[in-house]
Amino acid sequence: MLRAGGIEAGGTKFVCGIGSGPDDVELIEIPTARPSETVQRVVAFFRQQVPVPAIGIGSFGPIDPDPKSATFGYITSTPKLDWKNFDLAGAVGRELDTKIAFDTDVNAAALAEYRWGAARELDTFLYLTVGTGLGGGGMVNGRLMHGRTHPEMGHMRVPHDRVRDPFPGNCPYHGDCLEGLAAAPAIQDRWGQPSHALPAEHPAWDLEAHYLALGIANLVCALSPQRIVLGGGVMRRTQLYPMIVEKLAALLQGYIDAPAIVPPHLGDRAGMLGAIALAQLALD
Amino acid sequence: MLRAGGIEAGGTKFVCGIGSGPDDVELIEIPTARPSETVQRVVAFFRQQVPVPAIGIGSFGPIDPDPKSATFGYITSTPKLDWKNFDLAGAVGRELDTKIAFDTDVNAAALAEYRWGAARELDTFLYLTVGTGLGGGGMVNGRLMHGRTHPEMGHMRVPHDRVRDPFPGNCPYHGDCLEGLAAAPAIQDRWGQPSHALPAEHPAWDLEAHYLALGIANLVCALSPQRIVLGGGVMRRTQLYPMIVEKLAALLQGYIDAPAIVPPHLGDRAGMLGAIALAQLALD
Repeated sequence: MLRAGGIEAGGTKFVCGIGSGPDDVELIEIPTARPSETVQRVVAFFRQQVPVPAIGIGSFGPIDPDPKSATFGYITSTPKLDWKNFDLAGAVGRELDTKIAFDTDVNAAALAEYRWGAARELDTFLYLTVGTGLGGGGMVNGRLMHGRTHPEMGHMRVPHDRVRDPFPGNCPYHGDCLEGLAAAPAIQDRWGQPSHALPAEHPAWDLEAHYLALGIANLVCALSPQRIVLGGGVMRRTQLYPMIVEKLAALLQGYIDAPAIVPPHLGDRAGMLGAIALAQLALD
Repeated sequence: MLRAGGIEAGGTKFVCGIGSGPDDVELIEIPTARPSETVQRVVAFFRQQVPVPAIGIGSFGPIDPDPKSATFGYITSTPKLDWKNFDLAGAVGRELDTKIAFDTDVNAAALAEYRWGAARELDTFLYLTVGTGLGGGGMVNGRLMHGRTHPEMGHMRVPHDRVRDPFPGNCPYHGDCLEGLAAAPAIQDRWGQPSHALPAEHPAWDLEAHYLALGIANLVCALSPQRIVLGGGVMRRTQLYPMIVEKLAALLQGYIDAPAIVPPHLGDRAGMLGAIALAQLALD
């Protein structure tokens, strides 16, 4: 496999790597600052390396991933105001004079899990991450999911029983969408302490598994994925996996068989490795 | 375009046609009875016609549409017990000794709208129908949606405010899933009269638009479709279209642009024409 560059552009850090796959990659992490400063440090890393024929970027979003669009490569309506309408692919591509592939961070991670990880030999699967946000990407019929723009799976609406859970949700756009109820900041706001500080027997986890099972049930109904790869910081609480599996089966009621729900194989490197895979695809 | 056969296999009728497209098709309708009797009448129709090289079937479901599966061509876990685990594609194919293409009724209709109707030149769109059931199919990246089996979009869970709407939902599997709240039988059970008898100013329609907008918002988040083709008996109340558009925009809150929501162009013939198109695809 060709060596290529990969950038996982996240809200708190950028992970940049050069390599051909999980067993052959050099990487650095750069804290996310203002766009010009961050891009400068990214560019400096790649200039120190042997030039590569393409660099892939898996970015936080929303983004414009459509190569035919005038704003291809832009981060678009993000609440991070410094980055709103920033031409990330253009800035990197101009400085390094190289071909750029561009997609969401979650589609990049999905591609890495497909190529090297937990979704090998599948053609229709989802990659979900539950951390500071809740997002998803994946493949349908062997191709990464795109459409009018790209999925925003965390913003689905699910049933919210305000007697059981009076927390109103904290998504600045939608209040109690799935992200507003179940991402790490929602857990923190609801219980008054960060999710990693909550003990295993805290009722937070049953509620968390309930919301994630609801979101996954809806994605199963919408897409019939062969597998769900479910990761992100919140899922480091591995007790959640069997809880979600049990609740998902109860929600689907045997009318639809539930697909397997598995952790990612590539851990924190999935986004960056997927960005390398995006670049490799662009060179095929 | 080649002439081929098409069967829309529905719970109340089978529509059989032979032709090459919307302007060249002969059709009959057969009421759905028990499987052997229904298949016999279907077969008799095709035997009266000039033989065709393939017949497509777009069927009610759930079905097994995977050509690699041992139960390819079967209707599987349907609540219509006579038809449960019935090898529909096998029964028709053996009698007529012809190639059979097999998919869901909604994927067939989506394919027809893509080829001849409201979704031309799109590669990622959804076709939803709201009638005795609520179902959806469509394309992602130019290919019909399949996965572990096929989407069951009507069985998504959406918020259900029991103060505003105490009706518990009538899906035999899930109670208040989208189908259980918003398909025609739910409207009838909730209000005590069939949906076609409810006047335009009845509060049923605002509630119906609310649920359909919630379901569509979730599908937009899951899939980012370029367009939604929305039909079925309930959508003959065309006042629903602008109501859904308005409610969908309010739900998405500008974070995601809503795609256009349009009626099907091919009306009641979409399923049968799509079945012909499935057969044509299989011959390509």
